[in-house]
Amino acid sequence: MNTPAQPSAEPHVVWHNQAVTAEARAALNGHRGCVVWFTGLSGSGKSTVANVVDQLLHARGVHTYLLDGDNVRHGLSATPQLLEPQYGAEFAQRFGLGFGAADRAENIRRIGAVAELFADAGLVTLTAFVSPYRADRDAVRAMLPAGAFIEVFVDTPLEVCETRDPKGLYKKARAGEIKNFTGISDPYEAPTSPELHLAGGTKSPEELAAEVVGYLKSIAIG
Amino acid sequence: MNTPAQPSAEPHVVWHNQAVTAEARAALNGHRGCVVWFTGLSGSGKSTVANVVDQLLHARGVHTYLLDGDNVRHGLSATPQLLEPQYGAEFAQRFGLGFGAADRAENIRRIGAVAELFADAGLVTLTAFVSPYRADRDAVRAMLPAGAFIEVFVDTPLEVCETRDPKGLYKKARAGEIKNFTGISDPYEAPTSPELHLAGGTKSPEELAAEVVGYLKSIAIG
Repeated sequence: MNTPAQPSAEPHVVWHNQAVTAEARAALNGHRGCVVWFTGLSGSGKSTVANVVDQLLHARGVHTYLLDGDNVRHGLSATPQLLEPQYGAEFAQRFGLGFGAADRAENIRRIGAVAELFADAGLVTLTAFVSPYRADRDAVRAMLPAGAFIEVFVDTPLEVCETRDPKGLYKKARAGEIKNFTGISDPYEAPTSPELHLAGGTKSPEELAAEVVGYLKSIAIG
Repeated sequence: MNTPAQPSAEPHVVWHNQAVTAEARAALNGHRGCVVWFTGLSGSGKSTVANVVDQLLHARGVHTYLLDGDNVRHGLSATPQLLEPQYGAEFAQRFGLGFGAADRAENIRRIGAVAELFADAGLVTLTAFVSPYRADRDAVRAMLPAGAFIEVFVDTPLEVCETRDPKGLYKKARAGEIKNFTGISDPYEAPTSPELHLAGGTKSPEELAAEVVGYLKSIAIG
């Protein structure tokens, strides 16, 4: 690091820093950036719905990006196990993320910081993470400009999520093989006033995605 | 976390996950994503040149984003001091980043992971960080598809950087007030075969930026 913001004090160069602004990016894209934050239990359908929204928006020419476990857990929020071969044990233990409360908070903090950058870059940024703690979600909201954080609560009853159990995680959690599992051994703090509250147990992903796209249209995004 | 990739095993929903691909984003944008990684000493002109490149590309309708100390050090790579008020001392000490070797490696690792996501999102992603260690830069290169990492060595002699010293950092480093300062008390490992080698001490930011844009055009980006 140690990077100076701009060597504008350079004697022989008169260069005025005019960074490309968020407004200029919005003009190029035809819409402004924002964060559409899906939260809900494992198996609630967050990733599925976010993926359909991504496709619907992309088909309309909206510039989007989806952050989820698939593209975050191998890089940005890599586990200690993933980091150790290259960086050593001490580094891996310090910076690698497991599933304890502090690790989860840091995971959401990093994702929030990245989502903020993506929104600043002008993209409609979809995130699909359990993100069980209200304080962590509210911290992301606080980082963003007013109106740019759209919290989408995918409210699917635990029984339904547990019946789906696509990866057998609930079964393992019930058996005690996975600790700190949201809804079983760890709490889920539901949003108190999300921008959108989706009935994940009774409607199809397409119906739910249409609700999200409808909302985004109503606030002139997408 | 604990997010299943897709609840595709759901019995009552036949939903095939067709994520929006990097190719689809490239079609929408008119170009593919990549990482243009500026490296060089503090005061070498990295940020200035990257900023001019950003403006030139944006003016051509290219979708870009610039990652630098200004938008990374308050969020993604926040210092312990920034994290402590909200997250407490233990959390801040573990995850906050200072300027020691491990902290710098983790800083570049996080930035690399984020740049990879931005490139995947289809943006021409410019990064401007000293990034003094070869291994850290090479690790980012290894994460990206072949040809998507463009290393730009802003090769400005230390004497020139020290004369510029826009923030007085070299003066402080010489006085021992800043430790681990690249070029003074910490090594800078120059790239061995960067895609671009810029003569930062003798040409103007505009000339250097034109070289970068010319290179990007030659490989059909921008």
